[in-house]
Amino acid sequence: MVKQERAARTREALVRAAAEVFAEEGFATASIASISRRARVSAGGLHFHFASKNALARAVEDRAERALRQITAGPPAPPLPPATTADGPDTGPDTGGGVGAGGGSLQVLVDSTHALMALLAHDAVVRAGFALCADPSFGSAVDLRRRWRLWVEAVVAAAAGEGLLAEGVSHKDAAHGVVAATVGLEVLGAYDRDWLAPHTLTRFWTLMLPRLASGAALAVLRPQGSPGCGAAPPARNTESD
Amino acid sequence: MVKQERAARTREALVRAAAEVFAEEGFATASIASISRRARVSAGGLHFHFASKNALARAVEDRAERALRQITAGPPAPPLPPATTADGPDTGPDTGGGVGAGGGSLQVLVDSTHALMALLAHDAVVRAGFALCADPSFGSAVDLRRRWRLWVEAVVAAAAGEGLLAEGVSHKDAAHGVVAATVGLEVLGAYDRDWLAPHTLTRFWTLMLPRLASGAALAVLRPQGSPGCGAAPPARNTESD
Repeated sequence: MVKQERAARTREALVRAAAEVFAEEGFATASIASISRRARVSAGGLHFHFASKNALARAVEDRAERALRQITAGPPAPPLPPATTADGPDTGPDTGGGVGAGGGSLQVLVDSTHALMALLAHDAVVRAGFALCADPSFGSAVDLRRRWRLWVEAVVAAAAGEGLLAEGVSHKDAAHGVVAATVGLEVLGAYDRDWLAPHTLTRFWTLMLPRLASGAALAVLRPQGSPGCGAAPPARNTESD
Repeated sequence: MVKQERAARTREALVRAAAEVFAEEGFATASIASISRRARVSAGGLHFHFASKNALARAVEDRAERALRQITAGPPAPPLPPATTADGPDTGPDTGGGVGAGGGSLQVLVDSTHALMALLAHDAVVRAGFALCADPSFGSAVDLRRRWRLWVEAVVAAAAGEGLLAEGVSHKDAAHGVVAATVGLEVLGAYDRDWLAPHTLTRFWTLMLPRLASGAALAVLRPQGSPGCGAAPPARNTESD
């Protein structure tokens, strides 16, 4: 293995170990020793990469922030070539014509919540990054929940501009409801993964969309997310409930 | 002041100071010294009442748990004598005929969320009690979020039994949506009180009730809560937004 590649792997192992130990013990209680033990890296090796526990926590936050930015950069990466679906109108530039095109920004929102919950369910670093932003013993520089909120507000406002919201529904109220519920799922999911499962989120959207979406949008929206939106693979959807 | 009364006041001051310091610094980082300083109680006085920081945290949790139990013990204490309202049918035994009678268990749910958010907004001990149940550095014996969830599930199931839910709405999905959103409001409200404000919750229910409630129930339900349900006094409702 090239030296540089080995260094990157060690760094990654340390960031992951730090995230796991933070989740189990809390940031303030976590010791450098338990993080290096978990990563199977010597104390010297840890200090070569990270000057302090704070530096490790910042790396956890940075990794989580990059993951969130990928989700919220636009429509989630489509696995299929862009195509106008036969069952609904293509609603234009905001969705980029990719995944979510049928339901416009509203489908982008649904898809992104599925992508976020899948990340939170499967990536300890993202989970720890969200928890750190609310830990008073760590001075967070990156408030991930705030970033998520701002993005949800923007995408729901875009959906309103596209005429996708039901009559009488304020885009601010809709955004606040979605932010509150998704932050709740994130927090509850830290202790019980079922809150992050695709079927939980699909049911949430099945409940909410008939209230939020116009009739035309509702006909094409997929509460289970577009194919390839980042929700867990089909095998996970078979979990009994 | 009688000796016993003075002791109770000192205890109360210590519990409140502990809650405030936990919120600012986190449980693991909080020092006994800063708690006694905040409460204006000597270190000896603190140790007379509480053997350890853990004992203080348990007292915070107990106080918060009692407050939550009052909210969820039944319909919130009505300030007016029970009366059948002119604008809707009295829906029977489950609501106890008190506040929320018009909208049955669904109004009890709305009222209780208002009471909970008002408590979280104005009582640092209740806020800290909820935060402690998710703090991995403290072994919580009382999971307040879980208790809240179980109660919401029961009251929404009761509402379904009373025929108050809209057709096609599963009471489990409705309960999960309400739990996720209210836990989200609690978490977001720890850093920005606007998430706990009565107008925020009123808008949430204005958004949700047309989806959750049957037409007959919707006509009598009050998204702003019944008078005296524990929401902040009218003066607070005039906050501009």
